[in-house]
Amino acid sequence: MSESDSQEQIAVVLPDGAELEVDADATVEDCAYEIGPGLGRDTVAGRIDGDLVAKEEPVHDGAELEIVTDDGGEDYLRVMRHSASHCLAQAVKRQFDDVKLAIGPPTDEGFYYDFDDLDVDEDDLTEIEAEMEAIVEADYEIEREELSIEEAEERLEDEPYKLELLEEFADENDTVTFYKQGEWEDLCAGPHVESTGEVGAVELLEIAGAYWRGDEENTMQTRIYGTAFEDEDDLEAFLERRREAEERDHRKIGSEMNLFSIQDVTGPGLPLYHPPGKTVLKELEEFVEDLNQEAGYDYVETPHVFKTDLWHRSGHYQNYADDMFIFDVGDDEFGLKPMNCPGHAAIFQDQSWSYRDLPIRYAENGKVYRKEQRGELSGLSRVWAFTIDDGHLFIRPDQIEQEVEEIMDMITDVLETFDLEYEMALATRPEKSVGGDEIWEKAESQLESVLEDREHDYEIEDGDGAFYGPKIDFAFEDAIGRSWDGPTVQLDFNMPERFDLSYVGEDNEEHRPVMIHRALYGSYERFFMMLIEHYEGRFPLWLAPEQVRVLPISDENLGYAYQVASEFDDFRVEVDDRDSTLERKIRAAHDDRVPYQIIVGDNEEEDGNISVRDRFEDQEYDVEIDEFRSHLRRERDEQRTEPDFLQG
Amino acid sequence: MSESDSQEQIAVVLPDGAELEVDADATVEDCAYEIGPGLGRDTVAGRIDGDLVAKEEPVHDGAELEIVTDDGGEDYLRVMRHSASHCLAQAVKRQFDDVKLAIGPPTDEGFYYDFDDLDVDEDDLTEIEAEMEAIVEADYEIEREELSIEEAEERLEDEPYKLELLEEFADENDTVTFYKQGEWEDLCAGPHVESTGEVGAVELLEIAGAYWRGDEENTMQTRIYGTAFEDEDDLEAFLERRREAEERDHRKIGSEMNLFSIQDVTGPGLPLYHPPGKTVLKELEEFVEDLNQEAGYDYVETPHVFKTDLWHRSGHYQNYADDMFIFDVGDDEFGLKPMNCPGHAAIFQDQSWSYRDLPIRYAENGKVYRKEQRGELSGLSRVWAFTIDDGHLFIRPDQIEQEVEEIMDMITDVLETFDLEYEMALATRPEKSVGGDEIWEKAESQLESVLEDREHDYEIEDGDGAFYGPKIDFAFEDAIGRSWDGPTVQLDFNMPERFDLSYVGEDNEEHRPVMIHRALYGSYERFFMMLIEHYEGRFPLWLAPEQVRVLPISDENLGYAYQVASEFDDFRVEVDDRDSTLERKIRAAHDDRVPYQIIVGDNEEEDGNISVRDRFEDQEYDVEIDEFRSHLRRERDEQRTEPDFLQG
Repeated sequence: MSESDSQEQIAVVLPDGAELEVDADATVEDCAYEIGPGLGRDTVAGRIDGDLVAKEEPVHDGAELEIVTDDGGEDYLRVMRHSASHCLAQAVKRQFDDVKLAIGPPTDEGFYYDFDDLDVDEDDLTEIEAEMEAIVEADYEIEREELSIEEAEERLEDEPYKLELLEEFADENDTVTFYKQGEWEDLCAGPHVESTGEVGAVELLEIAGAYWRGDEENTMQTRIYGTAFEDEDDLEAFLERRREAEERDHRKIGSEMNLFSIQDVTGPGLPLYHPPGKTVLKELEEFVEDLNQEAGYDYVETPHVFKTDLWHRSGHYQNYADDMFIFDVGDDEFGLKPMNCPGHAAIFQDQSWSYRDLPIRYAENGKVYRKEQRGELSGLSRVWAFTIDDGHLFIRPDQIEQEVEEIMDMITDVLETFDLEYEMALATRPEKSVGGDEIWEKAESQLESVLEDREHDYEIEDGDGAFYGPKIDFAFEDAIGRSWDGPTVQLDFNMPERFDLSYVGEDNEEHRPVMIHRALYGSYERFFMMLIEHYEGRFPLWLAPEQVRVLPISDENLGYAYQVASEFDDFRVEVDDRDSTLERKIRAAHDDRVPYQIIVGDNEEEDGNISVRDRFEDQEYDVEIDEFRSHLRRERDEQRTEPDFLQG
Repeated sequence: MSESDSQEQIAVVLPDGAELEVDADATVEDCAYEIGPGLGRDTVAGRIDGDLVAKEEPVHDGAELEIVTDDGGEDYLRVMRHSASHCLAQAVKRQFDDVKLAIGPPTDEGFYYDFDDLDVDEDDLTEIEAEMEAIVEADYEIEREELSIEEAEERLEDEPYKLELLEEFADENDTVTFYKQGEWEDLCAGPHVESTGEVGAVELLEIAGAYWRGDEENTMQTRIYGTAFEDEDDLEAFLERRREAEERDHRKIGSEMNLFSIQDVTGPGLPLYHPPGKTVLKELEEFVEDLNQEAGYDYVETPHVFKTDLWHRSGHYQNYADDMFIFDVGDDEFGLKPMNCPGHAAIFQDQSWSYRDLPIRYAENGKVYRKEQRGELSGLSRVWAFTIDDGHLFIRPDQIEQEVEEIMDMITDVLETFDLEYEMALATRPEKSVGGDEIWEKAESQLESVLEDREHDYEIEDGDGAFYGPKIDFAFEDAIGRSWDGPTVQLDFNMPERFDLSYVGEDNEEHRPVMIHRALYGSYERFFMMLIEHYEGRFPLWLAPEQVRVLPISDENLGYAYQVASEFDDFRVEVDDRDSTLERKIRAAHDDRVPYQIIVGDNEEEDGNISVRDRFEDQEYDVEIDEFRSHLRRERDEQRTEPDFLQG
């Protein structure tokens, strides 16, 4: 080694795959300067192997390194919001001397801080927010300091929760870091921006209760949610989207439209579907049922309880038991099914098969039960009980392409029916996987070929497949631009092994089939929730719980109203027979989100026709019943998104 | 009291309601002689308050008494079969010295005896049966003897199971009875016939394993089943019915037709429906769905798991918890639903209602879970998981008649569709009941009025209603004359109280609705099982898993076969494309119970028509495709019971 090499060198990998040689004790910031002084100066933080860390953190040999700069990107916002959460804690400490600090991380949409012994209401939030703004205005430098455990203990002697955290750090570290701004400091791993002045426009959003460390056994603390953006415009845009999302909240609309309820007496995370909600679900069920039938699926039915032997065989028990509802009956252990696949594998296994019988395609609207944390249950989005429009295929390896193509057609048919823009990604073989090279290569090349043939971009997520097979993931965007995880086509080389599934090939030998897991909606609950918010409860005609409402102008037109309603008996039609004014009836139908109103008064009765009003509040007089009915049938059967009789 | 009255007198009630005065120490036989010496001589046993007892048993004051004579009726057969079980034990003891005796009661269709340390096979049964016949031939007198517990203990010193039973009797009795025939005797409460010669024609049927006292923790013993009739003709008729029932056994046909499976790995009493079985279930579901929709029912959906708070509220917890699958999650107790009604009550309760909204009718194909004894689980007839085509109505008291009439129409529609002859019975208010006189009288008179209006006999079962309301029960008979419990219309005054259900009446006051529980099939599992056996798997066209099969005469007609199949694409049609002879294909279609076969060869291909064969093996040539298809559609849509294209 030469003199200049006295310092040992290591290499980090940059996002473009290039390797960068740096000193063995180099930090994130050092690496940035190594790339270029401009980048060095702009560096705020870094990601080492995916983890967001302070720029003072050392890198290691082989580390995958990303530099985070003040470019306004997602990572920068995250760092800045973390600093905003410190400003919140500092402001609260100034105004409420006795509060104890818990934790205050950034989130995807903002930040929060948990406090013990803090009793505040909405009015207090305004004052706290003003204090935060003062702290931002003061532009305190944010200083990072490394302390020994003993020094840290001294500084935190009045903060019992921080001490608890410190104890845990102490098991694995000799030192911890503090971040200090003005008179205030916090035990914190960072990263943070340079000074409080960099925190842009802040807004406190909500007060909630939260258990210390998420555990129901612990103290309930006060959580204050907030968000921060680089400037007021971005903040305003976010708040507008948030208001819009609140307007569309499926819990609010679900209650207004009597779609479903979740009740204390019946239990958490266990939705009850009321008639209007079940009507929508049934339409959704029938839609996929038609698609399934067209594509040659056979329906099966499996129970919700199984002996846990089944999940020992499938391997779910070893990996999934904590999320299952399990109980003993006599000497045997039973559990509620968290997925439908093992039951379908058991049905397939019960028969012998020839290569000519394949593909076998099973479908089931199977309700599954998963034990989510009770604190995380929310409306239809996080539940214990949900129904999957599940499909499992048992196919020969040479049938992958043809079958996956068919499934992709079904999925895109569904997404397009609901006007959902989507993206696709192929996730390929991860480092640890089961199944030989041959089947993986055969499968991946067939999946790529399917994707290539579609006139739609896709991404390849290298190594992101499940250990048991590659998959194609869909993601889609709803009406207000939110992104959702969509359907998945998952190949499985593992379950057929575990269940010892086989078919007799043309060569008269036993062969292992490939299994495909697929769902078009995924969970009905989640899809229904998304649809409620996507349409703001204003469902397309074919889905609307009530499709047409007949409004008699006066009681004297009631007879004619019922007569008209009977002309629409293949629709979900109601007559508003309440003793009320037409104006009120129109408002009620509008509030109830009925796509079409038929208004009948003396004129209509005399002419034997109707007036039609849609939910955009357009109205047409002198409409012939036959004409409107023919239109309605077309609009329903073609699953059009919006009432368009008057909008043509 | 006069001299002649020195003996105290008591009164027993005879079946016609008459009272009979007898001495206080009178036995059943004494009572019979009191009625008349002929009856006295013919007396074999009696029923006191419904319990079958020996004629030597004393009666008590106020006892309801029936005399059992050797008239060949059900009760006499029971007594005679009990004696037959003794002949079985005596024969076994003669041939297998070391066996230990357990119990040997009569059953509805025969008798059994359980033995420990007995290892026998079908061949042994023939020999045992021959020995039994010798015992019957010998015509031993059957003698009853009353012994003290101590004497009994001595006699039973080699029979450990009998001693165990004796110990229990000893807790409540000073003496026990033995029955002795020839060299053999048994601890037994009786009753028995006079001599072994009275046992008519016997047949041993089956060897099975049975746990001592039905408890899985105990020894597995050997149970021998048999039956006995007064003469060979009756026995032969029974055996013929039994063979017929075995031929029709739904477990056998279910496996042959791939309808369902119950597997060790998935658990007992938890059926998995395979595609053909689910196809039949779906047709059944759609049939009631159409009826429900026509009758104004709204579908709802409830989960299979509820917090047990719900069943505390409904009262099921207090009475039904032992039959429920219950488990803890955190500090709360949850359970699988054993019935759907509380969930529906919770949905009704979630809203406010006006008298104008009623009736509200909820329907759900709800899968329920009940913890039957594992030893009693069998095929689809006794299961843990079964689906009810459940309906619950919430109505005003004045709507009972109209709603019950509608339900009765739906039920009879269902039963007639499957050619099931039925009987009806009205079960009225029992002694203990909830709800006032007024509502009971109102309800019962409306139910009677509904029954009166139907042109069909009915019975009144006085006092047999549930404590919470009167009901109408249906019973029906299948194709081989077996009787089945059918649907029920159950009124309920209790659940609305417990859930505090209400509606606002025309008087602006709160009122309590009446609830009706009703199902058309009852349990899908039981109804499906009955249908399989009723039709011997030869389902009507509309239900058949495979409706039409096309059989090409040779491989050269395969193309035409597929073309013909495509003309029937609104049916479940398959092409038998196997390399096989026509004869074999016809046999396979017959074995698979396909209603119609279409046979196509060169002639048919040339003429562009088909040959049609039905499952009665009739065949017609030169059939036009259109003609057959039109017939098929009518046969399916009219739900005709038998293929009748060739049977007109």
